[in-house]
Amino acid sequence: MNFTIQNVLIATNDDYLTVDVRVVDGKIAAIAPDLDVIGTIFDGSNKLLLPGFVNAHTHSSEMWQRGVMSIFPLELWLAELYEFASLNLEKVYLGALGTAVETLLSGGTSVVDHLVLIPGQELETIAMAIRAYQEVGIRAFIAPLIQDESLSAGIPSGESVQKHELYFRTTKAILEILEEAVKQFHCPEGGVSMLVAPTGIQLCTDALFKGCIDLSDGYGLCRHSHLLETKAQEKLAQEKYGCSAVEYLQRIGYLSDRTSLAHCVWLNDDDVNILAQSQCTVVHNPLSNLRLGSGIAPILKYLQAGVNVSFGCDGAASNDSQDLLEAIKIGSILHNVTDFDYRNWILPRKSIEMASLGGAKGLNVADKIGSLTLGKEADLVLYDLTNLSLLPRTDPVGLIVLGRPTNVVYSAWVNGRQVVSNGRVNTINVDYLRQELFRRSQWETKRKSQTVSELEAHYRQVMDL
Amino acid sequence: MNFTIQNVLIATNDDYLTVDVRVVDGKIAAIAPDLDVIGTIFDGSNKLLLPGFVNAHTHSSEMWQRGVMSIFPLELWLAELYEFASLNLEKVYLGALGTAVETLLSGGTSVVDHLVLIPGQELETIAMAIRAYQEVGIRAFIAPLIQDESLSAGIPSGESVQKHELYFRTTKAILEILEEAVKQFHCPEGGVSMLVAPTGIQLCTDALFKGCIDLSDGYGLCRHSHLLETKAQEKLAQEKYGCSAVEYLQRIGYLSDRTSLAHCVWLNDDDVNILAQSQCTVVHNPLSNLRLGSGIAPILKYLQAGVNVSFGCDGAASNDSQDLLEAIKIGSILHNVTDFDYRNWILPRKSIEMASLGGAKGLNVADKIGSLTLGKEADLVLYDLTNLSLLPRTDPVGLIVLGRPTNVVYSAWVNGRQVVSNGRVNTINVDYLRQELFRRSQWETKRKSQTVSELEAHYRQVMDL
Repeated sequence: MNFTIQNVLIATNDDYLTVDVRVVDGKIAAIAPDLDVIGTIFDGSNKLLLPGFVNAHTHSSEMWQRGVMSIFPLELWLAELYEFASLNLEKVYLGALGTAVETLLSGGTSVVDHLVLIPGQELETIAMAIRAYQEVGIRAFIAPLIQDESLSAGIPSGESVQKHELYFRTTKAILEILEEAVKQFHCPEGGVSMLVAPTGIQLCTDALFKGCIDLSDGYGLCRHSHLLETKAQEKLAQEKYGCSAVEYLQRIGYLSDRTSLAHCVWLNDDDVNILAQSQCTVVHNPLSNLRLGSGIAPILKYLQAGVNVSFGCDGAASNDSQDLLEAIKIGSILHNVTDFDYRNWILPRKSIEMASLGGAKGLNVADKIGSLTLGKEADLVLYDLTNLSLLPRTDPVGLIVLGRPTNVVYSAWVNGRQVVSNGRVNTINVDYLRQELFRRSQWETKRKSQTVSELEAHYRQVMDL
Repeated sequence: MNFTIQNVLIATNDDYLTVDVRVVDGKIAAIAPDLDVIGTIFDGSNKLLLPGFVNAHTHSSEMWQRGVMSIFPLELWLAELYEFASLNLEKVYLGALGTAVETLLSGGTSVVDHLVLIPGQELETIAMAIRAYQEVGIRAFIAPLIQDESLSAGIPSGESVQKHELYFRTTKAILEILEEAVKQFHCPEGGVSMLVAPTGIQLCTDALFKGCIDLSDGYGLCRHSHLLETKAQEKLAQEKYGCSAVEYLQRIGYLSDRTSLAHCVWLNDDDVNILAQSQCTVVHNPLSNLRLGSGIAPILKYLQAGVNVSFGCDGAASNDSQDLLEAIKIGSILHNVTDFDYRNWILPRKSIEMASLGGAKGLNVADKIGSLTLGKEADLVLYDLTNLSLLPRTDPVGLIVLGRPTNVVYSAWVNGRQVVSNGRVNTINVDYLRQELFRRSQWETKRKSQTVSELEAHYRQVMDL
């Protein structure tokens, strides 16, 4: 569809312009005042047009655990999650729909789903999530969450000798499934890209990482992983490798300019330099890092070192919303308390750039999306600046980044296809989604995890609690 | 108005009950299943009823600066604010309306407005804010923001000798105005309470604090103040008093069980004990503390020491929203990164209690509001649990505290009067408010503060930047 957005505010480096924006064949074709109209007209007056953001790390099926997970650190939280988060394909579908809707309505037009797989139905899980994303029309980056070690291996041993069960599948089998998924589903021009995405050093062997590198190289896939989310993982890396997790990943060749790494809380200065040199992207998930008590990622250091940083919501089990604007706000202002020199603080326009172009860079698509640039694909979001939460009129970008914008995404397009109009997702029946989420759940009040009970004493000991 | 809310979920200590709640003459008259209906019936099914929260610290007129303030530490930010935030009575009125609406729609039924006064129109300012709050129907605690030293006195001198202009009014004149305001407006039974509220040790003399103590004692008023929001204020207290600000306030008798203190970021362990012993309330403003880089208040220490803690949004110039649920979420999970032992972390039900009963305690009205207790005034909020942002159904309190609830306040009552129905404030015309906020403002892009330029070099020097 071709269209022209008339009289819309756009942000320049340090100012605003009122322009028309013309989209032809899904691409941004012209940006200038008073363009001749081509295609449908959209009234942009009192609205701000921004490039769509990237929700650069989430786990869509965690939608089902929103609000109910205990207030625990990651390692115990994971144990509880494993015990209670049983999935089926319907839940995968609805979780992805919900994640896509919340991402779109908070300014995101792309989502990286570090997708939890149903054991034995891995390909079906991936197909189902993709179905949901395509129905909604959001740009999807599917990063199947794989591991080849069992959960307890993710906690450092400390002085003790720990035995861990074997993982239920071999490394080889996992990689075969992944390759099959890539063959079946990787289709960037259709809006679906597959990533290789081992869970992280805490639950993966060398062989799994290396197999993923091979697939990434063979099929031109981006790479994703969790990295040093917790202090326990920092300890574990020293136990496993005798060096930092970053040094290890560099040594085996996992780091690259198409590698994005979620969390990155416990990196030392040498690690930061390695990320900068290898041109990796850090995906900042500020809310889950707070909820799980993981720590405050040294984002100002990353930016000063020239590391690309983007934002993620993380799964709803560790940040019980999928609102990207919330992640951007908190992920920006949080760091003001980590450096007394305010000249290093993140400014609202920088936050917007991190969320859009930063996200695109981390997925190796900065030439295609992430900014209002002629020739780029039209992943666009139009914000209604007359909404009460964005009034009075002051600085539009400041209002969007620093306020708590609510119901402000008026329209959104992905690759030129309109997916939000009049503040509503127009591609699916959101009321149906709401009814299904309601129908397939019930109020939960008390639940007690047996796995947590089994792990907790060891966890407390090894973490000196 | 008498009414009965039927079949509504309420939270008990560690569970939920479905009950009817009967309100007679503005008070909670019965809570039990299957009550005989008295008055109007409200359907509470699939809804959660909580006591109204207290927005325990804000500055309503800062609404006009939302989104536009530079990303500065408090001292420079204040300089910018003083320069640009000129007020008139219409702006006071609309700012208070907006603050009240956003507070109500995020679960708050009481607001403490540390109210910026128009010089020369102090009583008119107070009258205008009260008019707005009474029109909306929110419970108002008016804390006129007074000081008797000029702005530059708020920055430590360091090695230098600093001269400060005299404040434009004498201490005596300020206190006379305040007393007149108390006589005219203090009317707790009418929903308006006056507080004494010197800005803080950084801009107030001994004489002003002591005058406020006398007024507080004479008229039975609660006391409010900013306290140790920044490291600069910690330095300043040592310069001014040779001791911590808390020791100073204790010595002059300002601390009491009806004293609430906003921020409390830079307190040492002795200070924490003093707050506990004097039964003061800490008002936690997590978002402005982040935005201004003030620091993370040691809230877990306060709770462990038995200090009462409540939540505030702070003014929209330093937290560009007045959404109390955001302050509660961030003010709860933020502290998980300050203590590795997760057993000390704040649980969602504790957050709710801090926001409601904690707020009431800090205003010396815990016997009247702050919980669903028979005989208390009906300050009630009914949350729609079928909203997409609160689905799927899991733990209702967890969803409300840890999610990003949007459009979830379905009904609210203050002293038994319904002020929100069907998700909308029903006492005023919110569209009119929106139009006026729009009409009286314009997009601001670049502005440069002369005052900041004058202060910055000294600020950087004294803060070792």
